Amino acid sequence: MDHRVRRPVLLAASTLVCSATLASAATPPTQLFGFTAEESAAQRSIEQRFDADLKAEDLSAWLKNLSSEANHIGSPHDKANAEFVRDQLKQWGWDAQIEEFYPLYPTLKHHTLELVAPTKFVAALKEPPIAGDETSTRTDGMGPYNVYGADGDVTGDLVYVNYGMPDDYKELARRGVDVKGKIAITRYGGGWRGLKPKLAQTHGAIGCIIYSDPQNDGYAAGDVYPKGGWRPADGLQRGSVADMPIYSGDPLTPGVGATKSAKRLKISEAKTLLKIPVIPISYGDAQPLLAALSGPVAPASWRGALPITYHVGPGPAKVHLEITSEWSQKPLYDVIAKIPGSQSPDEWIVRGNHRDGWVFGAWDPLSGHVDMMAEAKAIGGLLKTGWRPKRTLVYASWDGEEAGLLGSTEWAETHADELQRKAVLYVNSDTNGRGFLDVAGSHSLQHLVNDVSQSVKDPETGVTVGARRRAKMLVSGYEKGASENEKKEAKIAGAGGDLPIGALGSGSDFTPFLQHLGITTLNIEYGDEDDQAGVYHSNYDSYDHYVRFGDPGFVYGIAEAQTVGHTVLRMADADVIPMQFGSFADTIDGYVTEVHELADHKRKAAEELGKLLDQNAFALASDPTRPLLAPERDPEVPYLDFVALDNAVVRLKKSAKAYDDRYARLTAGNPRLSAEQSKQLDDLLRGMERTLIGARGLPGREWYKHLIYAPGLFTGYGVKTVPGVREAIEQNHWDEANQYVVLTAAALTAYSDRLEKATALLGGGA
Amino acid sequence: MDHRVRRPVLLAASTLVCSATLASAATPPTQLFGFTAEESAAQRSIEQRFDADLKAEDLSAWLKNLSSEANHIGSPHDKANAEFVRDQLKQWGWDAQIEEFYPLYPTLKHHTLELVAPTKFVAALKEPPIAGDETSTRTDGMGPYNVYGADGDVTGDLVYVNYGMPDDYKELARRGVDVKGKIAITRYGGGWRGLKPKLAQTHGAIGCIIYSDPQNDGYAAGDVYPKGGWRPADGLQRGSVADMPIYSGDPLTPGVGATKSAKRLKISEAKTLLKIPVIPISYGDAQPLLAALSGPVAPASWRGALPITYHVGPGPAKVHLEITSEWSQKPLYDVIAKIPGSQSPDEWIVRGNHRDGWVFGAWDPLSGHVDMMAEAKAIGGLLKTGWRPKRTLVYASWDGEEAGLLGSTEWAETHADELQRKAVLYVNSDTNGRGFLDVAGSHSLQHLVNDVSQSVKDPETGVTVGARRRAKMLVSGYEKGASENEKKEAKIAGAGGDLPIGALGSGSDFTPFLQHLGITTLNIEYGDEDDQAGVYHSNYDSYDHYVRFGDPGFVYGIAEAQTVGHTVLRMADADVIPMQFGSFADTIDGYVTEVHELADHKRKAAEELGKLLDQNAFALASDPTRPLLAPERDPEVPYLDFVALDNAVVRLKKSAKAYDDRYARLTAGNPRLSAEQSKQLDDLLRGMERTLIGARGLPGREWYKHLIYAPGLFTGYGVKTVPGVREAIEQNHWDEANQYVVLTAAALTAYSDRLEKATALLGGGA
Repeated sequence: MDHRVRRPVLLAASTLVCSATLASAATPPTQLFGFTAEESAAQRSIEQRFDADLKAEDLSAWLKNLSSEANHIGSPHDKANAEFVRDQLKQWGWDAQIEEFYPLYPTLKHHTLELVAPTKFVAALKEPPIAGDETSTRTDGMGPYNVYGADGDVTGDLVYVNYGMPDDYKELARRGVDVKGKIAITRYGGGWRGLKPKLAQTHGAIGCIIYSDPQNDGYAAGDVYPKGGWRPADGLQRGSVADMPIYSGDPLTPGVGATKSAKRLKISEAKTLLKIPVIPISYGDAQPLLAALSGPVAPASWRGALPITYHVGPGPAKVHLEITSEWSQKPLYDVIAKIPGSQSPDEWIVRGNHRDGWVFGAWDPLSGHVDMMAEAKAIGGLLKTGWRPKRTLVYASWDGEEAGLLGSTEWAETHADELQRKAVLYVNSDTNGRGFLDVAGSHSLQHLVNDVSQSVKDPETGVTVGARRRAKMLVSGYEKGASENEKKEAKIAGAGGDLPIGALGSGSDFTPFLQHLGITTLNIEYGDEDDQAGVYHSNYDSYDHYVRFGDPGFVYGIAEAQTVGHTVLRMADADVIPMQFGSFADTIDGYVTEVHELADHKRKAAEELGKLLDQNAFALASDPTRPLLAPERDPEVPYLDFVALDNAVVRLKKSAKAYDDRYARLTAGNPRLSAEQSKQLDDLLRGMERTLIGARGLPGREWYKHLIYAPGLFTGYGVKTVPGVREAIEQNHWDEANQYVVLTAAALTAYSDRLEKATALLGGGA
Repeated sequence: MDHRVRRPVLLAASTLVCSATLASAATPPTQLFGFTAEESAAQRSIEQRFDADLKAEDLSAWLKNLSSEANHIGSPHDKANAEFVRDQLKQWGWDAQIEEFYPLYPTLKHHTLELVAPTKFVAALKEPPIAGDETSTRTDGMGPYNVYGADGDVTGDLVYVNYGMPDDYKELARRGVDVKGKIAITRYGGGWRGLKPKLAQTHGAIGCIIYSDPQNDGYAAGDVYPKGGWRPADGLQRGSVADMPIYSGDPLTPGVGATKSAKRLKISEAKTLLKIPVIPISYGDAQPLLAALSGPVAPASWRGALPITYHVGPGPAKVHLEITSEWSQKPLYDVIAKIPGSQSPDEWIVRGNHRDGWVFGAWDPLSGHVDMMAEAKAIGGLLKTGWRPKRTLVYASWDGEEAGLLGSTEWAETHADELQRKAVLYVNSDTNGRGFLDVAGSHSLQHLVNDVSQSVKDPETGVTVGARRRAKMLVSGYEKGASENEKKEAKIAGAGGDLPIGALGSGSDFTPFLQHLGITTLNIEYGDEDDQAGVYHSNYDSYDHYVRFGDPGFVYGIAEAQTVGHTVLRMADADVIPMQFGSFADTIDGYVTEVHELADHKRKAAEELGKLLDQNAFALASDPTRPLLAPERDPEVPYLDFVALDNAVVRLKKSAKAYDDRYARLTAGNPRLSAEQSKQLDDLLRGMERTLIGARGLPGREWYKHLIYAPGLFTGYGVKTVPGVREAIEQNHWDEANQYVVLTAAALTAYSDRLEKATALLGGGA
């Protein structure tokens, strides 16, 4: 999948000041976080040897090979790639195995999409070869398909629903239009793909078409492929439409590994499967359908970049959509490789990137995958010099991510107990490209990541990747049209302390680790100067495209391997797991402020709307030739009882400060811990994130158990922080909001309890 | 011209509360502002008789006749229309004359626009007939022309400059692109037309092309003509490109009437004439030119709705532009009609609307012109019943507005002394259409206008036009995407008091009266539910288009005639000129707050930018494959001395309150003034606006003398309030800002002085 769509809500500022200016940030600090001065020198030397073993030509060769044929689940090349990766890892000194799973994985047998009235048009549903793109001539790729959509044969009036998100249906209703018994056409963007047909179905649609509007990733964004990197008229975006905000992984085995012998649901029982057919199409195919719509002109923000007047319908455009799939289990090949830790073999640093693509997948996921391979090879090189990690390293090449994080989820569910006991960290990556360091995850590692970002040089500017990221934040907040979030981040960046990392929603393999199991997690990638969006999940996500528009020279692949590699090595080798809790506490403080504001804002908005409705203002303001009905009245918003949460945050901030102060003294060399004490401390730290897991999970989706980070039920990839409280408020579930205030407060209190124990071990009180 | 483009900056709230809810607003107040209870009954009966004489069929017949042939300056139908209007007025009992002027008015002889590299394309520069639009088949119309552009024959590389406004050139510079020696292509919108070639010329361009992007008024806005009302691919916008922010009227006779014997400048001396050729084109003609551009991709906000990737160039598109005009004086026919006042013949209520169109001009200006004719006819009807206005009425049908407010300016300049002595009010209108009441002008009349708006029924909803306008303001401020200004206005509307009126910039005939002579002015129109923009200044601005998309049934034409008519009649008949100064004082208070904030904001922004430049942040944040240079450093912003202005506002608010209190008692019937006292009071009130005129005018444009309201030097139509101070700050002219603080404070003090004299006459102290 992709990570670009889940840009996180901002986080509160760190209180630590590391480097006040961009200039000074170019000089790395002499002492690494988590290491004494002596240890730092040794660690730095290991990192230098590691870096020296990273070769751009490896990345290029592996990428070319892995993306040379279609490699979706069930394809011959998917298995061949698994074997190739396993063999390489073995060769580099790892203990590598393929672990198989058997999820339900339907594949396309037949599909038709045609306009049957008022004129006739048959959608091509083809991505023809493009000059200069070698693999685009191949025929082993997967056709246009939204996996886990239902089979069906439907005909109905068309309705344009913009991004198909909840607010879009409200706008439609104000124009007197609905999708009941009709076929919805929606454009990609604005929210996760899978929500589009789900919400269309909820509103009574009998089918759903998802197209890529040129405004979002076609000619309006930039020159199209092959002149530039953006989506050509026939390019289209495949993708899963399983209801992943309920649970990820095999639809038939929620919560358990999809091993051969696992107990399975019937297809009809699977909560994540759609009931209506859905198909992804290109803007070439979409234009005749949209141009045939009549009815109200679409609201201004709904209009894309096609040279037509966008109407919402319904009709007179009538379409016929038919999809038939082959519904069976397919084999999944995860490659799992280990190097046991020399001192703490039962403490695992897990690192993963998926390997399956929708077609050739050069960008998504192989650009990240080959960086992970480079790390593994360089670590193998270190092994040969006699070095061994103190903690165990586990490298994973996931299969079946595209269909719904299948490989990672099934493996995490299969090994849940062991992972919850042993895992210190899960580090994920996915697509990687030219640009800026982008990190999201557990905020207890925000400081470590900032520290690592000062040990990697940006290939384009020569300053550290941390300094460059700071410059970008400063400038983004300054430029005209900066969002509120960008302005906030610029202020933080300008203060000179740690740069904020994002919070994780979903969209890649970190989800089962972080949100189901409660393992400390990071997602680390480069990007934002690349032009991926235009070929995302298309036939043109190719080696040829990547080396022109992704990362020519693979220099950001090297930066990625360095950044993740240094993180992994420091997490593996530090005497005590290097965590810092002030950033976490401040971030939580920010989230809790947000949910307060959310409730207050909703209360005020409901009052305001009520007044306008009482005055009949909407009817009087409406143009009778383009009638716009009044919105529905919002329920009154009661005052919620945030006290438990507010107090939990106060305590958390205090506990965090106490620990961070003590830990700083430790890495200054005093006190020195015994091996036994270090181990006890590690045991506490390893379980910190798990205190944030609630046994009953989130409302209506108990598989998601993390009470701080979750993909939004109605955003899909986009994160909702403090989700039990936030989403309850958003959905007007006041009792539930009050309940989750208590549950979240309890989790934070457990976090503080455990942290205070750790502080005590370091010789300090609570 | 058009009025839709000068939507004003918001004004502070009135302190008077008239009607708290939309429901109660449906019942008109029993007493009219400016009239005692008794007088109100009489006045209301006059208004009822006036209203009864307004006939939709008159409007339709006049509009059809006046727009039946092209009626630009010098066309036979322009003269015929003048004679028709004069004869009608005479027939209705007015003393009507044609007054002639002789401005410089070039007309198109020959033009060519072609792409000469990298491919060939010859622009059609034609607006073909459209089915169902009768006049579109005529051939007497004016070709695509930007009057007062220079003649020329140039060939050069093309550069796309977006709207061609000052900030756009800054963005270009950051991409390393300039227009020196090249031809600029710019789109309509974002600022006044005439600034586009002026700024292109300032930046060294040798020619300028202005096209209508479909995003702004073509298919992206709605269905195009004839299916809907929006601009078809071949439609284009003519228009003046004289440098009107310097002075309006004949380029050769600034400050004096262009009578036969007037002393004239040489063409080379006229400051308002361009030096480079400029041509308006359709998006049909623009697309091949824009598609041939290369160079950096245009910034996101620059991209229009053509199905291409917008690049800025320069080149490889190279164009050849040639324009030849016939440069001579042409005759101008203003129709001036009078009814002498029975009690105060030397107090004039002047009412005008222009009559000349770019081609047929059904919308612009005839839709407003026929409403004015209906007023004149109904006033004629009142005359026949023996009624006479107390003050003199002067109705004016202006010619040559489109070229640069020629008819109104030359007349105002010719009769400047008399007007400054006698004029109580100038009321303007221009295009009128379906929708909401839209008033702008002198804020001393804000309350009167609010009062009038409660005596006119909205044809679509049955509530008063005031109540409907309030509903619209409330809803506009509530809807998603509301601007800060809309939110502010909604707050004011929600408070229940007077609705704010706008401030006047330019774009129609009020400019010479208000901003050159200092006469109290209003501009009153309906609109916002019509689809004018798509045919603005094109061959398709026709009767057929207007009756489908402008005001079917002419019901808003009647509402316009009622609204202006009631205003004129109340101003003519009230014992004392009905003014209220609290709104003016509060509005000025708001403006002065804005200029404070502007200086503070600029100071902060300059500091912020300076810091980023010191850190080299822009270079580090820039994508080397798409380099974005740092902006230029802003000069430091000193603290300005606003004290004189702040104190003047304090006094103004006090003086205003004192007057308004006394005046309220007067119209409550106590005291009663003698005829002599009323006359003295009128003399003071008639000169109030003129105290706001500064003898030396505005910096660099002494013709503009109003120190509160002016068209922006770099907005053209858009208003700049407190312009001497505001524009000096915007342009970093600190000494000038301090000077204009003093001058503006002096004007406001003179205003307070005069107002306090008026209050004293009413029996109150200062």
